[in-house]
Amino acid sequence: MELNAYSKEELLALEQDLAQRYADYQQAGLKLDITRGKPGAEQLALSDALDGILGGDYKADNGTDVRNYGGIDGIPEAKAFGAAMLGVKQEEILVGGNSSLTLMYQYVELCYLRGAKGAGSAWKDEGAAKFLCPVPGYDRHFTVCEDLGIEMITVPMTATGPDMDTVEALVKADPMIKGMWCVPKYSNPSGEVYSDDTVDRIAALGQIAGQHFRVMWDNAYTVHDLDEQPPVLSGLMDACRKHGTEDNVFITGSTSKITFAGGGVSFAGTSEDNLKHLKKWFSAMTIGPNKVNQLRHMRFLKDMDGLRAHMRKHAEIIAPKFDVVQQRLAALTGKGMGSWTNPRGGYFASFDALPGLAKEIVKLAADAGVKLTPAGATFPYGKDPEDKNIRIAPTFPGYDEVDQAMQVFVTCVELASVRQRISAL
Amino acid sequence: MELNAYSKEELLALEQDLAQRYADYQQAGLKLDITRGKPGAEQLALSDALDGILGGDYKADNGTDVRNYGGIDGIPEAKAFGAAMLGVKQEEILVGGNSSLTLMYQYVELCYLRGAKGAGSAWKDEGAAKFLCPVPGYDRHFTVCEDLGIEMITVPMTATGPDMDTVEALVKADPMIKGMWCVPKYSNPSGEVYSDDTVDRIAALGQIAGQHFRVMWDNAYTVHDLDEQPPVLSGLMDACRKHGTEDNVFITGSTSKITFAGGGVSFAGTSEDNLKHLKKWFSAMTIGPNKVNQLRHMRFLKDMDGLRAHMRKHAEIIAPKFDVVQQRLAALTGKGMGSWTNPRGGYFASFDALPGLAKEIVKLAADAGVKLTPAGATFPYGKDPEDKNIRIAPTFPGYDEVDQAMQVFVTCVELASVRQRISAL
Repeated sequence: MELNAYSKEELLALEQDLAQRYADYQQAGLKLDITRGKPGAEQLALSDALDGILGGDYKADNGTDVRNYGGIDGIPEAKAFGAAMLGVKQEEILVGGNSSLTLMYQYVELCYLRGAKGAGSAWKDEGAAKFLCPVPGYDRHFTVCEDLGIEMITVPMTATGPDMDTVEALVKADPMIKGMWCVPKYSNPSGEVYSDDTVDRIAALGQIAGQHFRVMWDNAYTVHDLDEQPPVLSGLMDACRKHGTEDNVFITGSTSKITFAGGGVSFAGTSEDNLKHLKKWFSAMTIGPNKVNQLRHMRFLKDMDGLRAHMRKHAEIIAPKFDVVQQRLAALTGKGMGSWTNPRGGYFASFDALPGLAKEIVKLAADAGVKLTPAGATFPYGKDPEDKNIRIAPTFPGYDEVDQAMQVFVTCVELASVRQRISAL
Repeated sequence: MELNAYSKEELLALEQDLAQRYADYQQAGLKLDITRGKPGAEQLALSDALDGILGGDYKADNGTDVRNYGGIDGIPEAKAFGAAMLGVKQEEILVGGNSSLTLMYQYVELCYLRGAKGAGSAWKDEGAAKFLCPVPGYDRHFTVCEDLGIEMITVPMTATGPDMDTVEALVKADPMIKGMWCVPKYSNPSGEVYSDDTVDRIAALGQIAGQHFRVMWDNAYTVHDLDEQPPVLSGLMDACRKHGTEDNVFITGSTSKITFAGGGVSFAGTSEDNLKHLKKWFSAMTIGPNKVNQLRHMRFLKDMDGLRAHMRKHAEIIAPKFDVVQQRLAALTGKGMGSWTNPRGGYFASFDALPGLAKEIVKLAADAGVKLTPAGATFPYGKDPEDKNIRIAPTFPGYDEVDQAMQVFVTCVELASVRQRISAL
């Protein structure tokens, strides 16, 4: 029954039931955590063979001794792998250390403070740079902007990606909008896959934006499918070639959620000219990334077929956890207490509570021993204007923990919703 | 016999002999390279057991699963190791990725652009920052300053370290001198070990320098001894505690020339408060360094005893190469054609030719198939004012190559010196 259909007396009775159920959870002394998008131990163990895989052979395909210094942009086989994974040419790839977030941070910093194209091209020389942020989105993207002092402007997400009419209007109107964050496949946290039309329109933004506009295309979940027949994200760089906007995109990915979250390999894909400027800066900062770890990964994952086979094993482990999230949320169906997404990949589900209740629900859950991502984290500056979005991250805990945490969560949603309704009557 | 003691006729005859010997080398089609301070393959192989050493146990001492995300400053056992290696407390250590150069770059950038102590403490807010650079020195330190736009002021090296009277006078006179580069043990390239008095005076600089002055103490060769009874560098941080200047130093080191040059672990040691500000910035940029590689290294090196035993194996491989450098240079003894150092550790020897001849000697050697570090590289902006210093890096090539390269080098020194003398007569 819809929340709105209850009488006050019914609501009060319902509140009592829910409060009792909630109190029972509180007494159970739970300690559950569905906070962060981290792989679980069983997933990590899928890649334990990374250790020992080199068998004394430290030579890359081109004869490079990966143990020694050198090679600012990675070994050739890792470049080929990254190019295939991100949908760019091998000449458009840089292979980095263990963190694609670092590559993103450094590239935004390069563009802002130093200039993507060298002296005279820095955003800061034109004024105060701004970024578009589809919301809900990824808190660490927002932190990059906040840390560098880049103003963030939110844009609503739709089922096909960011609302492109709004994006285009904003970008056309203000040349100081210098970039946009995107998680194009299984968007963090809401799980949308950008449609072909959205990808094409994003690729064309460079034609209407101010100079040195950059789409930060964080393709973190490009192969992180739960289903055997997953949705296909169309290639951003292919579209850019059509529009002549290869300079306007910076594509990233990593093996963090493929092999070891903290010990993987990161990739950046962008135009050769963009890479030239980035590598010039990197050359002042390092003698090169850890090539041993790159070779280790290439020996283990081999190629796209090897990668896909490996990702099937991840799906087998985490799909049941995603499924139980949906099964438990189903208890809210038809109750008018919120809506949620059912992503078929990535690391999150997203729940929109009734406006004004996200913080309250997160607090209720915490007080019953279930840690959730802080309400607001999916918005720039931590401020969800409607206080409704909650990110659910089911991969790290075990199946039973996710199940139990979601039961508590659903109770908290119901309790908060009923109480809100009562006080509104 | 001294060059100055020859008559013109004798010099002309000598020149003919040397030119003939040089022409023979040219005809031999040599291809030798004593350019960079890279370990040789035999050294790298000492650490091949790093691969496979984890044996399925990915838990750090404190129970952390090193495969997963997290830990901005490293695992506890790596911190303890780094603290012992750099002579600081465990709370004063940050363990990074594979490059201590990156830590140095980032720290100088932090101090210059953002402020070592947060908002309001950036060097740039006070004006144009300057750095003291003992010369000859390390080209990649100079590149950091050049890249960030920090002016470099040279200070002469002495047998006991930088000329401290000059350093103190400069630092006292100009509060915009915000830092100094130091390679305190087996200085790159000349091999000096800073004396106890020098270390103490450097630790005291914070008392007379402008605010937020930082000594960049690149202790790259702290355990890289050739002899069984090596010189002992006194502890900078110990001296800083005496002077209350813990904030004024940033100490770095790595396992790059201990295990794998491109795949090691880096360490930074500085005051806890400095670290707090650095970690805050890093938190916007990364979810943490590669902890798997840190654990790998700790299982392999274990502790300071393990480290020292490992370094003895390096010494056995490279000491003969350093010795043959000295044996070949000995042919120049008493000839008045230059002077050289005989370091008992580190990665380099340094040769001072007669003024005005370094470029010529490097060119002669190149034309005979022997690549040397470009003349000038050991000075800021690549400009050796006397054009005399040449860095010799004997570790990467095999023993015979070093031997042959040094014979060619000596001939080039003689030929250039004799020709200069002739044209001066």
